[in-house]
Amino acid sequence: MNTTSNNHFWKKDKEHFIHPYTDYATFKDEGSQVISKADGNYIYDSNGHKMLDGIAGLWCANIGHGRKDMADAIHQQITKMQYYNPFGHTTNEPAAELASKLAEISPGNLNHVFYTCGGSTANDIALRLVHYYNNLRGKPNKKKIISRNYGYHGSTYFAANLTGIHGTKDCFDQIAQDLVSHISAADMYRRPAGAENLTEQEYCNFLAAELENRIQQLGADNVAAFIAEPIMGAGGVLVAPEGYHRRCWEICKKHDVLFIADEVVTAFGRLGEWVASKEIFDYQPDILIVAKGINSGYVPLGAAILSSDIYDVISKPQSDGGVLSLGFTYSGHATACAAALKNFEIIEEENILENVRNLGPVLQDGAKELLTNPIVGDVRGKGFMLGIDLVSNKDTKEPLNVASRVFTKCMERGLVIRPIVNLIVISPPLTLTENDVQALLQIVNESIEEVYQEVSAEGLV
Amino acid sequence: MNTTSNNHFWKKDKEHFIHPYTDYATFKDEGSQVISKADGNYIYDSNGHKMLDGIAGLWCANIGHGRKDMADAIHQQITKMQYYNPFGHTTNEPAAELASKLAEISPGNLNHVFYTCGGSTANDIALRLVHYYNNLRGKPNKKKIISRNYGYHGSTYFAANLTGIHGTKDCFDQIAQDLVSHISAADMYRRPAGAENLTEQEYCNFLAAELENRIQQLGADNVAAFIAEPIMGAGGVLVAPEGYHRRCWEICKKHDVLFIADEVVTAFGRLGEWVASKEIFDYQPDILIVAKGINSGYVPLGAAILSSDIYDVISKPQSDGGVLSLGFTYSGHATACAAALKNFEIIEEENILENVRNLGPVLQDGAKELLTNPIVGDVRGKGFMLGIDLVSNKDTKEPLNVASRVFTKCMERGLVIRPIVNLIVISPPLTLTENDVQALLQIVNESIEEVYQEVSAEGLV
Repeated sequence: MNTTSNNHFWKKDKEHFIHPYTDYATFKDEGSQVISKADGNYIYDSNGHKMLDGIAGLWCANIGHGRKDMADAIHQQITKMQYYNPFGHTTNEPAAELASKLAEISPGNLNHVFYTCGGSTANDIALRLVHYYNNLRGKPNKKKIISRNYGYHGSTYFAANLTGIHGTKDCFDQIAQDLVSHISAADMYRRPAGAENLTEQEYCNFLAAELENRIQQLGADNVAAFIAEPIMGAGGVLVAPEGYHRRCWEICKKHDVLFIADEVVTAFGRLGEWVASKEIFDYQPDILIVAKGINSGYVPLGAAILSSDIYDVISKPQSDGGVLSLGFTYSGHATACAAALKNFEIIEEENILENVRNLGPVLQDGAKELLTNPIVGDVRGKGFMLGIDLVSNKDTKEPLNVASRVFTKCMERGLVIRPIVNLIVISPPLTLTENDVQALLQIVNESIEEVYQEVSAEGLV
Repeated sequence: MNTTSNNHFWKKDKEHFIHPYTDYATFKDEGSQVISKADGNYIYDSNGHKMLDGIAGLWCANIGHGRKDMADAIHQQITKMQYYNPFGHTTNEPAAELASKLAEISPGNLNHVFYTCGGSTANDIALRLVHYYNNLRGKPNKKKIISRNYGYHGSTYFAANLTGIHGTKDCFDQIAQDLVSHISAADMYRRPAGAENLTEQEYCNFLAAELENRIQQLGADNVAAFIAEPIMGAGGVLVAPEGYHRRCWEICKKHDVLFIADEVVTAFGRLGEWVASKEIFDYQPDILIVAKGINSGYVPLGAAILSSDIYDVISKPQSDGGVLSLGFTYSGHATACAAALKNFEIIEEENILENVRNLGPVLQDGAKELLTNPIVGDVRGKGFMLGIDLVSNKDTKEPLNVASRVFTKCMERGLVIRPIVNLIVISPPLTLTENDVQALLQIVNESIEEVYQEVSAEGLV
């Protein structure tokens, strides 16, 4: 669907921009689709084709696109002070205010904020700090991190190592693999051998036992942390069995293992709460990782929010004249933090969390009706986070890798979804109206039906 | 100098903001200085105290602070489209335009841009891509990186490992140490044993020989890249002997080792050129790392700019259905890229490079006069990048660790400098006037003189 090949930007892009996740089997011929405009819940390509943004930019535009109130707040901060460095004993007003606000809306004693520019660096820095923490409390061997298959935790060299999605590893090296150990995803739909016929409660026990066994195999004295998304995002919108996070958390507490909640996708409203861990899943992380929704992607920003227990250890001088020697030029960037404060104000004033609580079930229940289609194997999610799993056979659950076909058909009908092999991911702005939700469901339904007709005719199902 | 202790932001900062490089011996009592306003070449604390910004935020506010023209350009982009994801085959206008512009101003065939949100991630991703590149061209053992003592390359887990500043390692773990090997800094002032009395040309040969020996010791088949800043920044504003970079580059070429120029500090005008490597130091990097000056720190942005030779290898499909599986949500962030385009326009329209070429010598030559002070051992730099090395004894070059005293006295007089143990770093906005430069020099001179009187009285010199 190369409708932009005469576009000035299309040419420059093709010649000079190395995109994340480019498929070079086709890129050099086809180039990129140029998205030129974004407004509220809609985006527009360079031909003026209007599309409902079913993925909120990339899980981030929670308050919608192109907002003048955000632009005004950002303009105001820039003309007052766009940036000044936060190193040592220097601060700025928006970063201080936001740190306080984040402490307020984060559960329990998550009171101390280390700022970064996104999720990858928040995870990366959090792990550096976890290792530092165990060095300072005299546990230099307690360093291993347990992560999960299909977990997504970012793209720095170390964060990529935490990530458990096999497709991201192709031809890339792994470093420090001795530090990371992966256990099963909490996948209700495709389960590990031996767990296929368990009840939800039994399956929860099965997965929790795997975590505890792994800690014991590695030795609790060697395990520093467990990292998990409340609902796995890029790994497949996988919703864990009821009680899973709470059980894992209890096991972590028992073995003095820190629980890191990677809420890059889920925090700030996507599941209808500011933070999902405690409110929805009933556990208290030791470290909360946030980004994306923190300012709806208007200015790059992320943060690792640490418990007071961790802070008390790492905020002691580690040596004579020693300082906490890490951080980024743009940690606590004044403009990024001002954008976050305005974003929170908008979420509060426009009752956006309530909108997700009201319309989340409409989206989820409506999507469940897609299960009548022969190629829809599973529909799962919560709030404004939805995955539709395509299969060639509902009994074998064999993945049917045609999500990109559905993507194209949705786009023609005026909707952007995110195709991941056999999975359709939907994560729209939290400002969708009920009409938007219904329009989205209708387009997805029609597009999947059309793809079903095609693959039927081709004998693929 | 806690003049802000009753400040609302001061309290919130102290309770909730974990700063980079905090000294926890004093932070919990003193808290942070709140910088509230920034305008042009000046910043203001929360008491309204006005200071000339001698460090451009943190080597970044090249065009000066709080500019309305930047705020307007950013406002315009936000209301048009603040962000849309760049994954796969999707692009946005500012990112495409900026990639083309970066290719144009980067020397030689540095034509392909991978965007990040800052220097750390640009280095981190560059190294992931270097390893990927050597995997794809069938050299899976060619992975080691040669870096330099005192080099600064960032704060992700892997970038921190490239960094050669010992003070940043205290109580932090190192990962993948087998992948990184450090050689001497190109330090004209404090030289390694055996090099003290060499001529500049002989010292250049000495350092180049060390690089070549290291490549041979490790085995050229095992060495992927050499990474170096044209002038070392945080490691001490170290200016290499004449011809050093060119010689190192020739050695790298001879051994099929990539040369990565970390120009996070130097690119976009600090030394009076868009890019320093080729124009000033006469070598052609294979990868150019940029951040900071790219948009003067208005919105977090960084990039790794790759040669066509590297791109040709990594832009082939690495496996059936394989994609280039790395990148960040905010790679090619539309607003950050729009800010960079406006920043470049301002640099061109206001002849800012020419300003540095004109006033750089005024700054450097004026600072050289400080050498008459008994505690000033060395003054070095180029353009708007200056280091003043304090010593207790000019013969032994024993560092005199009182830069923080000079910092305090400068601040009282209305100037911010950056103190690093015994070094005063000055890296002002590139928009300084000649009057600003003279005022800066006078304050530094007076402050160092006052500190000299103190340390004399204390018997420290």
